Amino acid sequence: MIQQIDQYAQLWKQFEAFLQDRQPTGKPDSLYEPIRYINDLGGKRIRPLFVLLAYRMWHADVTPALPAALALEYFHNFSLLHDDIMDEAPLRRGKATVHEKFGTNTAILSGDAMLIQSYQLMLEAAAPLGGEGVLCSRLSEAALEICEGQQRDMEFEKLDAPSEEQYLEMIRQKTAVLLGLSLETGGRLAGADLQTVQLLYQIGQIMGVGFQIQDDFLDVFGDPQLTGKQKGGDILRGKKNYPYVLYYNSLPVQDRSRFCQTYLNAGVNNSIDEVLSLYEEASIEEKTKAMFQSRFSKGLSQLDQLPGTGRGELAGLFQTLMQRKF
Amino acid sequence: MIQQIDQYAQLWKQFEAFLQDRQPTGKPDSLYEPIRYINDLGGKRIRPLFVLLAYRMWHADVTPALPAALALEYFHNFSLLHDDIMDEAPLRRGKATVHEKFGTNTAILSGDAMLIQSYQLMLEAAAPLGGEGVLCSRLSEAALEICEGQQRDMEFEKLDAPSEEQYLEMIRQKTAVLLGLSLETGGRLAGADLQTVQLLYQIGQIMGVGFQIQDDFLDVFGDPQLTGKQKGGDILRGKKNYPYVLYYNSLPVQDRSRFCQTYLNAGVNNSIDEVLSLYEEASIEEKTKAMFQSRFSKGLSQLDQLPGTGRGELAGLFQTLMQRKF
Repeated sequence: MIQQIDQYAQLWKQFEAFLQDRQPTGKPDSLYEPIRYINDLGGKRIRPLFVLLAYRMWHADVTPALPAALALEYFHNFSLLHDDIMDEAPLRRGKATVHEKFGTNTAILSGDAMLIQSYQLMLEAAAPLGGEGVLCSRLSEAALEICEGQQRDMEFEKLDAPSEEQYLEMIRQKTAVLLGLSLETGGRLAGADLQTVQLLYQIGQIMGVGFQIQDDFLDVFGDPQLTGKQKGGDILRGKKNYPYVLYYNSLPVQDRSRFCQTYLNAGVNNSIDEVLSLYEEASIEEKTKAMFQSRFSKGLSQLDQLPGTGRGELAGLFQTLMQRKF
Repeated sequence: MIQQIDQYAQLWKQFEAFLQDRQPTGKPDSLYEPIRYINDLGGKRIRPLFVLLAYRMWHADVTPALPAALALEYFHNFSLLHDDIMDEAPLRRGKATVHEKFGTNTAILSGDAMLIQSYQLMLEAAAPLGGEGVLCSRLSEAALEICEGQQRDMEFEKLDAPSEEQYLEMIRQKTAVLLGLSLETGGRLAGADLQTVQLLYQIGQIMGVGFQIQDDFLDVFGDPQLTGKQKGGDILRGKKNYPYVLYYNSLPVQDRSRFCQTYLNAGVNNSIDEVLSLYEEASIEEKTKAMFQSRFSKGLSQLDQLPGTGRGELAGLFQTLMQRKF
């Protein structure tokens, strides 16, 4: 998607070349092969693009920000690697997950190594500025929140009555914090003042919440031809996503347990039709769309508060994300 | 053991009080409870003592070194937590391992959180000196070697013909590097010059290799009344430890596969007698003992090369470790 847009194609290529140049080759190779494998699975590279575009608001040449961009991509891939073990996920981006291909033990250990390398890359990025302390300390704070978010996610699935507030806090920690840190890190490396840096973090978080709700939206209401995923995969797996939480909380208390049963039956019967027709009656598609669009709009309007003139590229990326179909 | 020796009792207490004071209490508690649990399992606290005694060679008050001492204990416990999952170990220090008690998913995630907190503590220790870069960068280098060592350990068990050299390199990475880093970190925090810091790292590594071989020795030849472990546990589990590697490589090539079979039979028959009698004929007990004692002696003699007069306490700790029966 993003790499097909001329405006970002050059930046994308530059990042991919750096990632390839830095593919780990240490010994034993069995520890590093899974890292190269997950790096090569691709993905949207949104975190690196956030770092680089935030940096480019002040400096045309993004070369000094590449290690930090890679650090956050490594952190993201580390978390995918361990999350996939916990979720027993067989596939990631249409290919075998690391634990399926290389075994769980190697997946745990290669994930650990990626987390460590994420710090190494962040140290490398910060060294010329003498700012290792603050960048690594912010990485650690965010990293711990992301672990908390993953733990909340596992517990969320077991909740009897999940509230919208609990859901939003869970995805803020699990997904949005890292997008906030990406914009913040780009700004810090570029030498932005503290107020700007904090605003960048806020904007990234708002966009991150929107991004996750949009993911949930596409899962349920998207076109499987475009998403490349099974339509209603979350419903079939019984996963409590944003449409679920919205509908559940719109019901009178006495009707909720019946809906839970209908939701579980979808997996048993391998059909999402009944859930979709309930959602249609309650306009869940429109409400979910309105929710993520309001996050994106808020992110864009906060971006307008930033000083300087270099924010157009970032705004363009936000608009591209807003319109994505996959 | 160590805490019962008057000379170290005060230091031990000071560290334990700091560890308790810093027990994590974040939310959700289910992420942090396993961390408090493994911290409370105790252990010899050798890594913290190495940090603190190295620091005390230059400064009487070790308070500024406590966060670094805790950082390396956290790193050690993180690695135990993930290693125990990989080894499917049911018990650690006589109690249920974290994955047995809290489940594998929580154990993976709490381990990740401990690794992150290890960096947070190291950043805290280094901040007053402005030395975050070098301390975190050395932590990362060591951490990656330890992952490599764990991967080598898993592969070592599958080797047809494990050499003594491969064994020594594996335990150097898996165990000794962290003991080297402990002494080095204490020295760096105390402001020691680079040559001294590098020597401390070497000494810690030598002691670490000795320490691991001594562990293997105690497993096979120790008194189970004192070790608190099943005699010959490694033999019964078919684990290739130092006595195994020594004996295996002392045999003519044509006799080796027969010995492998005898070793495997020990577990099947639940008896270590046959292996022990082979070891006795070949003086494996004496040779293993000579090996770890030579490491300790080398560590002590290198310690003598250090400048200053404060090394007596560290030498005393080395001698205590040398004579341990558990």
